[in-house]
Amino acid sequence: MTNDIFDEIDPPQRLLMGPGPVNAHPRVLRAMSAQLLGQFDPEFTAYMNETMALYRRVFETENRWTFLIDGTSRAGIEAALISVLEPGDNIVIPNFGRFGLLLTEIAQRCGAVVTTVDAEWGTVVALEAIEEAVARVKPRLVACVHGDTSTTMAQPLEGIGEICRRYDALFYVDATATLGGMSLPVDKLGIDIVTAGLQKCLGGPSGSAPITISDRAAERIFSRRHVEKGIAPAGLVGGNAPRIASNYFDLAMIMDYWSEKRLNHHTEATTMLYGARECARIVLQEGLEARYTRHALASRAMVAGLEAMGLTLFGDISNKMSNVTGIEIPVGIDGEHVRARMRLDFEIEIGSSFGPLQGRIWRIGAMGYNCRKHNVLITLNALECVLRGEGFKLPSGSAADAALAVYAASETSA
Amino acid sequence: MTNDIFDEIDPPQRLLMGPGPVNAHPRVLRAMSAQLLGQFDPEFTAYMNETMALYRRVFETENRWTFLIDGTSRAGIEAALISVLEPGDNIVIPNFGRFGLLLTEIAQRCGAVVTTVDAEWGTVVALEAIEEAVARVKPRLVACVHGDTSTTMAQPLEGIGEICRRYDALFYVDATATLGGMSLPVDKLGIDIVTAGLQKCLGGPSGSAPITISDRAAERIFSRRHVEKGIAPAGLVGGNAPRIASNYFDLAMIMDYWSEKRLNHHTEATTMLYGARECARIVLQEGLEARYTRHALASRAMVAGLEAMGLTLFGDISNKMSNVTGIEIPVGIDGEHVRARMRLDFEIEIGSSFGPLQGRIWRIGAMGYNCRKHNVLITLNALECVLRGEGFKLPSGSAADAALAVYAASETSA
Repeated sequence: MTNDIFDEIDPPQRLLMGPGPVNAHPRVLRAMSAQLLGQFDPEFTAYMNETMALYRRVFETENRWTFLIDGTSRAGIEAALISVLEPGDNIVIPNFGRFGLLLTEIAQRCGAVVTTVDAEWGTVVALEAIEEAVARVKPRLVACVHGDTSTTMAQPLEGIGEICRRYDALFYVDATATLGGMSLPVDKLGIDIVTAGLQKCLGGPSGSAPITISDRAAERIFSRRHVEKGIAPAGLVGGNAPRIASNYFDLAMIMDYWSEKRLNHHTEATTMLYGARECARIVLQEGLEARYTRHALASRAMVAGLEAMGLTLFGDISNKMSNVTGIEIPVGIDGEHVRARMRLDFEIEIGSSFGPLQGRIWRIGAMGYNCRKHNVLITLNALECVLRGEGFKLPSGSAADAALAVYAASETSA
Repeated sequence: MTNDIFDEIDPPQRLLMGPGPVNAHPRVLRAMSAQLLGQFDPEFTAYMNETMALYRRVFETENRWTFLIDGTSRAGIEAALISVLEPGDNIVIPNFGRFGLLLTEIAQRCGAVVTTVDAEWGTVVALEAIEEAVARVKPRLVACVHGDTSTTMAQPLEGIGEICRRYDALFYVDATATLGGMSLPVDKLGIDIVTAGLQKCLGGPSGSAPITISDRAAERIFSRRHVEKGIAPAGLVGGNAPRIASNYFDLAMIMDYWSEKRLNHHTEATTMLYGARECARIVLQEGLEARYTRHALASRAMVAGLEAMGLTLFGDISNKMSNVTGIEIPVGIDGEHVRARMRLDFEIEIGSSFGPLQGRIWRIGAMGYNCRKHNVLITLNALECVLRGEGFKLPSGSAADAALAVYAASETSA
């Protein structure tokens, strides 16, 4: 009976330098090995409240409604869209990559009428084009990806919140790939809902989606509140507006669960909450500014190293995410073979991309726990070695030196 | 900056003897502290495939489509219902507690036309009544909770699968509270889709939902397959039938992700997968029959102890779940005060219930890792002590003795 149940979990010692997931901070994994508590235990609800307080600071917001969705980052996106949109609602989506298309398709499944404002992959969307679309469509919601890892571009968010307020639209941002790595002052930017995931710059495992919701978005969501029949006191079942099309992603119910009412919804994913809470503690102990600086510095060092190798970076570098870099696969080089050698010889994972960019670019990340000088240098040296082996002509040794020079300059200027 | 980020996770040493979640097996928590892998790493996809193989054995099925949904048990329920049902479809739901009502409300949000076959809380639904409804309504789906923890009743499932096949309906079972604790031979019972959660008899944390899907259910689901535009090769975007209303819970997409195609959907929740895999290994190492016997024995011992105390059990005991027992709160006793004393004096959690049973019954569980003789005895002794303190007249010492006698008899007969 025991000979065919496979071995214990024992992953290889792999350095994850792709677009995420990345290695988790060991403190996060240790926190997740703590024993469980009942979901209504005062000790556990205190952990829930502390998690809310911590993520308010990570999101730089005063929003009361700041909590976790129990699923991957994609679950957070769907919860936000389905709880705001009802069939027939208009939505405007700045679209510059695969995750803009994901917002589009989730919104379509909500029955919304989607207007995209498209930019070529590798660029971002002009603010004027967004304003033009919002003025024309008068949408209920504007939904935008902050950093779209498929292209490595980060959409500048300044000004969009102001446009949304002017035209009475809500503003949603998918910050899955940037929260904790790039500046995202939610209140200052006038964003109404932001969702994220742990597996990128926050340095935890996929499976929990932090979310923050402004009061005016909460008002919209609560206008569709319904209480489950099985737990409702008499007279409390119905709501006034059309019911949200999902129970699991019904933010009104989830907010009732995270509020003092503690109305039972799902059973909170205890271990993921322990992990999400520890991710936020680590971010805040380092400090947001220090963290953003660390990611930006690693990005400059990585870019310098890659360019010194004679590689061409992908897209509009002035709008590149600081935690991921796209590289054009040189003509005559087999991109997947390079990725395999990186993994097999060096135990380093780097990424490919999706759709039109599949086989055209690699994506190298340096984020969260892995965003450190030695990982940048190790990865550059490994890539140089692998490319040399593939017959790519490059000046040996120059990549790491260029990256080191960036770090040295930052230490001098500091 | 570091003085207001709260302390490390350090839960009290609490014994969770409610209706779940319960304490996780320490091996599960250790497995979850392993470092992460990229979602398309061969080592990680091997863990995914092993997880599929392990859960086939836990579900006692040959179903190829046996995997995990990244969310709590409720996420598994919604994924099953929304991927099968389209607006206007008929569904029949045997309804005998809060979680039958949950199935009802999720199905309604899918736009389905719901016919319930109701039984009073504390009883189960007669097979004839189910057949009558199925014959009358000719539903696309029959959806039934196996063990409804709100009432502690377990619906007998024998015969329902056969009825569903006769009337060409699919058969879904929510086994959140029973999988790994009560017998559920999926193929033998003719069930098409079963979902569960880790936090009950499987002895893990909430946050991952094992699911198994028969070929005929998969055919229905794949008839609505759509590939995301951002990752689709040309010509592969569209599907033939109305798109499933959720992206996150679109089982066709999730199956493409768990298949050899490995089409990207969400980023698999690595740490929860490690935990789910370890739960299944532990279940299979013990053996399914041994495990069911252990739960049934603890149930008999718990019942004997509670009755020896002079307490009245709730509902139709012949259909009681083996892992949870409902107890009528005696007249004149403050149920919440008893629960608080159990927690504060003994560090033991027991449950109350929902809706009409709130304040009327306690629920005591003995399941998964906690389903052991000493936990049954410790809990009975603690409850006796607390009830004595509340002025409830009982024969001191008889509860644990009665439970011990049940265990002794089982050892003699073994």
